[in-house]
This record gives sequence, C-alpha cells and structure tokens, in this order.
Amino acid sequence: MKDDPIKNPHLRLSRRGLLLGAAAGTVGAAVAGTAAQGATGEANADDIVDLAGEYPFYGNAEQAGIRTPPQRYTFYMTFDLTSPLRADLQVLLARWSAAISQLMKGKPVGQIEPSRPDAIGLDTGEALNLSPACLTVTVGLGPNVFTDAYGLAGHRPHLLRELKQLPSDAFRPGLTGGDLSLQACADDPQVAYHAVRDLARIAKVTGAAATRWTVMGFGRASAGKGQSTPRNLLGFKDGTRNIREDADFDRFVWVKDGPGWQHHGTYQVVRKIQMHIEAWDTDRISDQNAVFGRHKVSGAPLTGVHEFDTPDFAKMDVAGNPVMPATCHVRLAAFENNEGLRILRRSYNYTDGINQYGVLDAGLLFISYQSDPAHFETLQTKLGASDRLNEYISHIGSAIFFVPPAPQEGSYIGAQMFADG
Amino acid sequence: MKDDPIKNPHLRLSRRGLLLGAAAGTVGAAVAGTAAQGATGEANADDIVDLAGEYPFYGNAEQAGIRTPPQRYTFYMTFDLTSPLRADLQVLLARWSAAISQLMKGKPVGQIEPSRPDAIGLDTGEALNLSPACLTVTVGLGPNVFTDAYGLAGHRPHLLRELKQLPSDAFRPGLTGGDLSLQACADDPQVAYHAVRDLARIAKVTGAAATRWTVMGFGRASAGKGQSTPRNLLGFKDGTRNIREDADFDRFVWVKDGPGWQHHGTYQVVRKIQMHIEAWDTDRISDQNAVFGRHKVSGAPLTGVHEFDTPDFAKMDVAGNPVMPATCHVRLAAFENNEGLRILRRSYNYTDGINQYGVLDAGLLFISYQSDPAHFETLQTKLGASDRLNEYISHIGSAIFFVPPAPQEGSYIGAQMFADG
Repeated sequence: MKDDPIKNPHLRLSRRGLLLGAAAGTVGAAVAGTAAQGATGEANADDIVDLAGEYPFYGNAEQAGIRTPPQRYTFYMTFDLTSPLRADLQVLLARWSAAISQLMKGKPVGQIEPSRPDAIGLDTGEALNLSPACLTVTVGLGPNVFTDAYGLAGHRPHLLRELKQLPSDAFRPGLTGGDLSLQACADDPQVAYHAVRDLARIAKVTGAAATRWTVMGFGRASAGKGQSTPRNLLGFKDGTRNIREDADFDRFVWVKDGPGWQHHGTYQVVRKIQMHIEAWDTDRISDQNAVFGRHKVSGAPLTGVHEFDTPDFAKMDVAGNPVMPATCHVRLAAFENNEGLRILRRSYNYTDGINQYGVLDAGLLFISYQSDPAHFETLQTKLGASDRLNEYISHIGSAIFFVPPAPQEGSYIGAQMFADG
Repeated sequence: MKDDPIKNPHLRLSRRGLLLGAAAGTVGAAVAGTAAQGATGEANADDIVDLAGEYPFYGNAEQAGIRTPPQRYTFYMTFDLTSPLRADLQVLLARWSAAISQLMKGKPVGQIEPSRPDAIGLDTGEALNLSPACLTVTVGLGPNVFTDAYGLAGHRPHLLRELKQLPSDAFRPGLTGGDLSLQACADDPQVAYHAVRDLARIAKVTGAAATRWTVMGFGRASAGKGQSTPRNLLGFKDGTRNIREDADFDRFVWVKDGPGWQHHGTYQVVRKIQMHIEAWDTDRISDQNAVFGRHKVSGAPLTGVHEFDTPDFAKMDVAGNPVMPATCHVRLAAFENNEGLRILRRSYNYTDGINQYGVLDAGLLFISYQSDPAHFETLQTKLGASDRLNEYISHIGSAIFFVPPAPQEGSYIGAQMFADG
C-alpha cells in the first residue's frame, strides 16, 4: 500500500490518513503525522476517495450520471450512426445496456483471456482488478435517431431538435453533433476510459455506430449535493448555485410529459468551451472578480462575504454603480434575473496540452441537463451576447441529446420506442 | 461528503468504506453495505486514496518523483530556453525551486487575490482548497543547458547527450527534445496540472523559457514498492519486474561519479509511445500473450502461474519451441538476457482522444530513470529491432534530461553549477 509509512518513510500522512490506517488495520497509528492543510488552513472534506463505490444501472427511474454527485473524471464521446438498419441500432442499444450494467459493477464486458487460443478477448482488460470507482455511463440519443430511417420519427421527444445558433458559437469542425452520446464518469479515469473504449468497440463490431468526437475531463467543475464547490481553470468556484434539491430536479431537469417512456428522461446539452487561460492569467484581480461577480478566493458574491451568500443585485456602490456589474457572469445567469430559470450543470475541466502557438490549451467541458433545451438557449443567448467572460472563452464544440430513463433489469435503454412501433 | 449514504442513497459502499465512515465519525456504520469487488473477486488494496499525503521538496539526497511510488497522474512538460542570459536561467531555476516547495505543500505559489485591485494574481487559483495529493515536481536539465552560452559547458554531466537514433524511432514534429523538463505527479490531476501551469507561467514571466511539448498521463503504468502492478492500455500488467529495492536504485539509477553536485542525480529518458489499440484489440489472445510472454489476466510469465514467478527462458514446449517466444517483450527486456541491466520505469497511460481517421489515439508516456542513458539505448535497440510489440506501437516522442539531486532548504535546483564557476 502506497501510504504505508514503513515502506515509504518520506510520506507525511494527515490525521484522517492515520484514522484510516487505524481502521484498516495498518501500522499508520504508530507513526506521528502532520495535518496536511490547504492554503486556507482548512482540512479538506474531499480528501478521502473510496474507489469501491458502485452505482446500480437498472431499477432507478432516471439514468445514473445526472443527479449522481459528480465523480472526479469523465470520458465523454459522441457517435455517428453508420447503419441504416433499425435492427442494428436496436442491437447496439441492447448490447450497450448489457455491457454498461457489467461495467458499473466493475466487471469486464466479456472474457479478457478466452480459453480458446484463437479467440479474441471480448474485453480489452485495462480495468481488470480496478474497482467500480462510482462509474456511471449515461446514454444519449441525438436528433437523427428519431427519423423514418429507423422507423422512429413518431417517437421523437417533442423538444428534441438541433440547438439554434447562439451569439457565442465558434464551432470547430469535428467537435459538433453526434447521433449517440456516452458520458462515462468515475473516480478513476482508467475506469471511465475503459468503459468508453469497450463500448466504442461494441459499436464498431456491430457496425451500428462510429466514434465522432470526445473530451476527457480531468477535474469536476460542478458540485452535487454534499460536495464542496470545485474550481474551473479560471481559478473560480464553479457551480455554487447549482441545482441540488429534489424539487428543483423535478421542476427543471426531468421530463414529465409526452409518452410514458420519456418520463424521467432529460435533455443533455454539451459544449466544449475553450478558455484562453494565458490571457486570463494576465488580467488584474479586480477585473477577474468583476467578470464573475464573485471573489476569487472565497467564492462570495461581490455583495457578500461567504460563498453561499445570496447576491444583492440591487446594491450600488458609492459612485452609484451596481456592486454586481451589469455584465458579470453571475448576474446574467442568475435565476432571479431569468424568470426563475435554472439548469443542472455537470461540467468538467479539460486540457488539450499546448496549441500550435505554444499557448496552454484548456477549458471546460460544459454539460447541462434540463427538461427543455430552450432553457439552455435562453440563458446562453443572454450570456453569449453580454457576458464579459466572452473575452476569455470560446464555445468550440456543441451537441444535444435526449437521455431516456433507465431501463428495468432484463430490458435496455430505449427499448420501449422499438416495442411501441 | 459524497459518500454519505444519507445524502446519496443509491451509492453502495464497500466494507472498507464503512470502516472509513466509522473512523471519520460519519453515519456510514449505520448502513448495510455490500463489498464491492473486482472481476477477480479480490478486494482491491488500492481502493482508498488519501489526497492529504505530502512529500518534502528539500532535504533529501534525490529529487522526489523518481523513487517515490508512482502517484496516479502526471503532467509532463518540456521547455525551450528563450533567453541567452545565464542570469535568466539561474533565476528561473531558483524561482521554480521556491514555487515547487510551496506547491508540494499544497500552497499557492503566491497571492491568488491580492488586496491591491490593480494587481495580478501570482497564482492561478484552481488548486486552492485542494490538498497536496502527494504532488512531486521533478526538474530535468537538457543537453543545451550545458553550453558556453550559459557558462556551463564545463559542468555537463559526462553521460548527458542526445540519444542515438534507434530502430523504433518514428518521431513527430513538436514531440521531441527540450532544454528543461517538469514531471509533475499527483494523486489529483488538477493538482499536477496547476503545478505545471503555474511553473510555465513563471518561465514565461521571467522570459527564460517557453513551453515545448506536453503529455498528460491519466493512469500509472508502473508499480513502485508496495503497489500492485497497474495495467497499460494494451490490457497487460506493466512493471512487474520494475526496480524496487534500494540496492538496485544505487546500482542502476543514481549517479555516483563526477562532481559532487551530480551525485544522487540521474538521467531521465521520456518517450511518447503511441499504441495502436484498435488493431491490438483485433488480435487473438494467444498472440497477445505471445507478444508479451505473459498471460493477460494473471500477468504470469508463460512458463509460470503467478505474476511474480521468474520466467524460465530455457523451457521448451513439446514441439521444441521456447515457451517464452524468442521475440517476446519480456525475454528481450529481461535483465537475465541483458547482462544484468535494469532501468527504472515510471510510466503513465495517456489518450489523445480520436485521431483524424476516427481511431482511438492512446498510448504510454514511458519515463525511465537510469545512471547511464546508454542502458536505455542498449535495451531499446534490442526491443526496437526484434520486439513483436513493434507491430502495435510507435515511438512518436523522445527527450533526455539530467535530473540533478534535490536542493537543501535555502538553495535551489542546480545552484552548485552556477556557484562553481
């Protein structure tokens, strides 16, 4: 075990680490430890990660990976349908469902080392011996699924359509669209990568779909219930006012109308948002705070002291200007200023390394869930037109999907649309 | 806390998680849990990650990040020197050292939110509130550091030179060389990313160096002492026979001759090795096993049953062929077949997403440490010429650096070469 101070004398353990060591029966308690602390002097409640956590795939109303408190990593991928046959799509969704149910239990999708020597392994193997790490795989269906080609035109969720063009759009070829999406999230990125890799392999083998674009998210940038608020790569807390309560999920996230098979579904909007972090890093702190409408360190609104203080949008400074600037991100996005509208954000940080100009290339894989894609469009239209943050970000990728509810055991994702017609 | 079963009723906790919950004073113990297990039915000793772990920067003989049991993630970057001035290089190494000592304690490199509103934050902030996560940052000096331009030609470690051309070389523009290297490793990738980002920013601000190429490693692919052997993206255990004992470190890793300031230094070789994983995934299992000379699931040599069984290179099958094939990876790389030669591997898996042909683009960030770069060349010359694995891999990036020993508190990396003349 890495944290064993006998084997690794240079490692300093936290008090929590020692408690853990004692609980797990190791020698940790025999060693004097120093409390490791962040720059703020607070102990960090998220310090202990238990990779044994596991979520069920079947049996819940909604697919996992939406209300689920965000895991630490994601591997997100979209696919193009490559077969005109209804049966191929149906088989793919059934095989994906069966495979995901295994993967979420930490099991391979098939034999890794078959006994017949001329056989090909059904699972690629790199997640063997790894625990489930809270893996969830969320499947989305794009607009092209619901067409005459597959006999599914009549089943289209009535709000599913391509997103309208927005003022912030600066899309790059190869980073938009897709007929299917997989959002694999886990507390171990090798587990998430393995899941998407093996599901992509199934798509290829069935001939039903081919990879389109992908983003790996290495740090969550939205908080779920009970989680402390993480930071995006602009250094600010992201998701302080995110949806957390069941009543808000019911009101803003889950689909409640249309055919029964769509209930507890939702619409997934994904945007690859490049952040010009090296330019941002040259901006003075007062301007950074004004762009967000928050203090960078505490996350408090400029009218408050603590992160969760409610912003006072009416408050004026001595010169008669609003303390929360007219074009700050928080003001433009706040539900108070958007007729109560809220969307669930479930974003991750990403990096693409260094670009051709030698500049750090990084940003936010923004993923939102909402009961109506128009909610995203309403908010983003406003942000895209006025947000001072636009100077430092570009929406370079985009896609939209309907996420159907979870299947019951013995069934598969989307089964009812095939059964009904 | 994410794992709180009250707040997150769908999450199943392992028995270890419950122990942890009890130790940390949460309600975990009140909830019935199911033991989460891998496909093999074994509990996983690496399930608990404590992000509070911290390594010291100063005071050890060697830099951290070499003998240190590999953390879960790396962000590796090389730099070009952009100033002809000796003082600029000196200032950069001093500023990097001071910054790294802070970063390894989980502290920012400077004020994030200065009180003067027109000031620019000295730290980009995204790691604030995160624990050290066992961060190590290892600094390497490339061949061009030791030139007349900097008055350092006379200080060149006598084995430092460009690697000779090897049969496996298939380098891509922009993925080779560098005058300085940073290997940041941590159990939280946001911590590793933040470290490299802020150190790159210091390089830019001082005018001394600019980013060259970078790779993010998302899963370790070499084991250190006390760690179970991880898997590479070909699904095989990697690093079963890696160096673990102090005597082998002394014999094969640390520099013991030359000027005193080089003692406890080492040579770092880095290769970006692309793996053609989709082709590999179509290969039959008997061939995969023969390519490595090991069983995929157990990691045992083809002549053995358990992972750590010593390969029997003389053993023949009934047809009179060696059970460990003549061109298998293990046979070619084994110290028994290379006059006892060993190198320390400290590699990570990486992915670059999907390439222009729609194929998954992934591989291994191979990093090795050795007391003589010729040791790497000897092994890689043999592997590059004969290894059957070559059908499935390409060495697309490469660089070499001398890694000086760790500084004492109050000094900085490489200080002695400036002091000496």
